Amino acid sequence: MSLRETYDPDNIFAKIIKGDIPSVTIYEDDHVLSFMDAFPQTRGHTLVIPKQAQATNLLTVEADVLSMLIQRTQTIAQAIDRALAPDGIRIAQFNGAAAGQSVFHIHFHIIPVWEGGAMKPHADPDSGMADPKALEEIAVEIRAAL
Amino acid sequence: MSLRETYDPDNIFAKIIKGDIPSVTIYEDDHVLSFMDAFPQTRGHTLVIPKQAQATNLLTVEADVLSMLIQRTQTIAQAIDRALAPDGIRIAQFNGAAAGQSVFHIHFHIIPVWEGGAMKPHADPDSGMADPKALEEIAVEIRAAL
Repeated sequence: MSLRETYDPDNIFAKIIKGDIPSVTIYEDDHVLSFMDAFPQTRGHTLVIPKQAQATNLLTVEADVLSMLIQRTQTIAQAIDRALAPDGIRIAQFNGAAAGQSVFHIHFHIIPVWEGGAMKPHADPDSGMADPKALEEIAVEIRAAL
Repeated sequence: MSLRETYDPDNIFAKIIKGDIPSVTIYEDDHVLSFMDAFPQTRGHTLVIPKQAQATNLLTVEADVLSMLIQRTQTIAQAIDRALAPDGIRIAQFNGAAAGQSVFHIHFHIIPVWEGGAMKPHADPDSGMADPKALEEIAVEIRAAL
């Protein structure tokens, strides 16, 4: 069952945590890393992940790690609100491939939306990876609002 | 701005908490109420809301209330997993009408999904309200797994 995946220590987010794959950082402390989604559904699409916990999803993550994740997600969503002034913000957290999960390291999506604005599909390779320089320009604004 | 709505103490979830509008309960304690979504996107679509906190969304809710909400969301998602054996579970939390929020009392959606299964649109009046008896049959299974 897809909700019973074994944690793969070489998943792409584990590599981002180790610094083996680059990412555009929004926030980092000992326990949490937040960075721009490389396949953003909207301008400002940000991810929040635990750094120490090797949990694939919501069903298996420790409760205190989960609390920390949602609190950092809130803080970063507040900064995105101040920096980018969206009309709305979607929080999404997918568990299992059937639910749209594509990296099996638990993560929260923060997706700012604007009235009448388009939202690209989730993790859509056809949309292409975002230009890291363009992501960094947005990240500068969000970090300044943290 | 839609992310700056004033809390309306007569919103439909406030009425459900007071018992003025019926709902099919999954779980209740002093701080949290969980019940079946009356317009379910999939079989087992469940909501988790705070009972005391008068917060419209993620930006304004107190951090400790938020922690409690996500921890109860986890516990109930685990029960849904055991009871209904979905292939995946989506967690969604919408802030602002532009993001799809339709009731301005903060809430988490737990949406079990199955491979190849359809997912109805969010809060779609065209889908019609679910039959409370059908919801209760599902709720019995989830409550037994809590």
